[in-house]
Amino acid sequence: MTELKKDTYTAAILIIGNEILSGRTQDTNTSWIAEHLTVLGIQLVEGRIVPDEEKEIIGALNALREKADYVMTTGGIGPTHDDITAESVAKAFGLELEINDDALQMMIDHYGDKKEITPARKKMAMIPKGARLIYNPVSGAPGFQIENVFVMAGVPKIMQAMFDEIKNLMAHGKPLVSRTVTCNLAESQIAEGLSAIQDKYPDVSIGSYPHYRGGVLGLSLVLRSIDNEPLDLATDNVIELIGSLGGHTGAITV
Amino acid sequence: MTELKKDTYTAAILIIGNEILSGRTQDTNTSWIAEHLTVLGIQLVEGRIVPDEEKEIIGALNALREKADYVMTTGGIGPTHDDITAESVAKAFGLELEINDDALQMMIDHYGDKKEITPARKKMAMIPKGARLIYNPVSGAPGFQIENVFVMAGVPKIMQAMFDEIKNLMAHGKPLVSRTVTCNLAESQIAEGLSAIQDKYPDVSIGSYPHYRGGVLGLSLVLRSIDNEPLDLATDNVIELIGSLGGHTGAITV
Repeated sequence: MTELKKDTYTAAILIIGNEILSGRTQDTNTSWIAEHLTVLGIQLVEGRIVPDEEKEIIGALNALREKADYVMTTGGIGPTHDDITAESVAKAFGLELEINDDALQMMIDHYGDKKEITPARKKMAMIPKGARLIYNPVSGAPGFQIENVFVMAGVPKIMQAMFDEIKNLMAHGKPLVSRTVTCNLAESQIAEGLSAIQDKYPDVSIGSYPHYRGGVLGLSLVLRSIDNEPLDLATDNVIELIGSLGGHTGAITV
Repeated sequence: MTELKKDTYTAAILIIGNEILSGRTQDTNTSWIAEHLTVLGIQLVEGRIVPDEEKEIIGALNALREKADYVMTTGGIGPTHDDITAESVAKAFGLELEINDDALQMMIDHYGDKKEITPARKKMAMIPKGARLIYNPVSGAPGFQIENVFVMAGVPKIMQAMFDEIKNLMAHGKPLVSRTVTCNLAESQIAEGLSAIQDKYPDVSIGSYPHYRGGVLGLSLVLRSIDNEPLDLATDNVIELIGSLGGHTGAITV
């Protein structure tokens, strides 16, 4: 865990699962986690999607845990043969994989009877040695944390419950604040002026996103910063720019 | 481009954009491309999401173009200051970025008048030297191809039109065929038998995906292979397994 208090902490996401790479399942975990990290002042700096293959999981995990303050993985911790995340994470850290008695007890509590712990379910209590468990209120089998890596389930409802358990274990930065200004100009009309505002306010990140709504072309300009003052100034500049180009400003979301 | 005809070709996707990493925008390009590649017999082996930052784009692109037969990027080719994909891709390949006359003509044709090519729009005709253009029937400004890398727009409608343009430029493998068997068993009940079937048919990839539909717990077993014979045999084995465990088989999708 990072020890010095910083303004911004970073995170990376590792999505594990063939079903995402085959197009069978639409990943929604990345955007959900991204949104919730932003609120916590933790900035998502990279996402990766890899198949259920040991070498791929280990390679991506080792790269991301070097790069970001925190890494969240989702997927591959169920009872079937293609669930190899726990084993792969153990190998990435050079740890033994072993039955975790607390994990087993969590599952017995969930299923209500020791007899319900079949060999397949018992596999879900195989956890890298020394890991901290992440409680799973939805389906019993826990996730786990090793150093700066949080290993969570792939099913969104379970992942979200696990995220609730871990969010206070991470050091929070100053949350990013954002302003969204919509207008009826084209990107190409506003690009030059916007670039000048970006240069003037380097601590504000300005993004430009065209959209069609109800058949009408529009543009959302999203300004983000951890400091309110330059954010408000840059936002005023953008509103002025739109007016000076003969555009109309629509909703401004704070 | 790969020259030897292989059974399976691989691809990787690089999603470029702060809006994906902030959670503002849900990426749907990965699953759309994944699904369409699968039909072509091209297997998606990795996806990465990086911010609009030169160093990140270059690093990820160079890793992925080494790893996969083809790389598709989406995002960052518009007219604003945060659109830095073309420049970054040029640097990754050590190429000059220059005004491409054919790209400029495509844009003049699209807008209908040379006067419409503002400096911001002209930026969209800045293409790495020697790249092959990818026609954009939706909004004019083209994507481009260098070696095994296809650079496309981030807006799904435009990306999809560009994908249509490039799909026949890639060598196609044998398409993966899949069978999905649904049943009313829990993953943990079927895990052991399923693992035995997986061992028996190494050329078939078997995935297990629990789902709740209308409040009822169910399980989809997805079998995939480029060969029909082991696929059919493995599917029969799975159906027998479900029956032997007292389960009911629901829809079987071919």
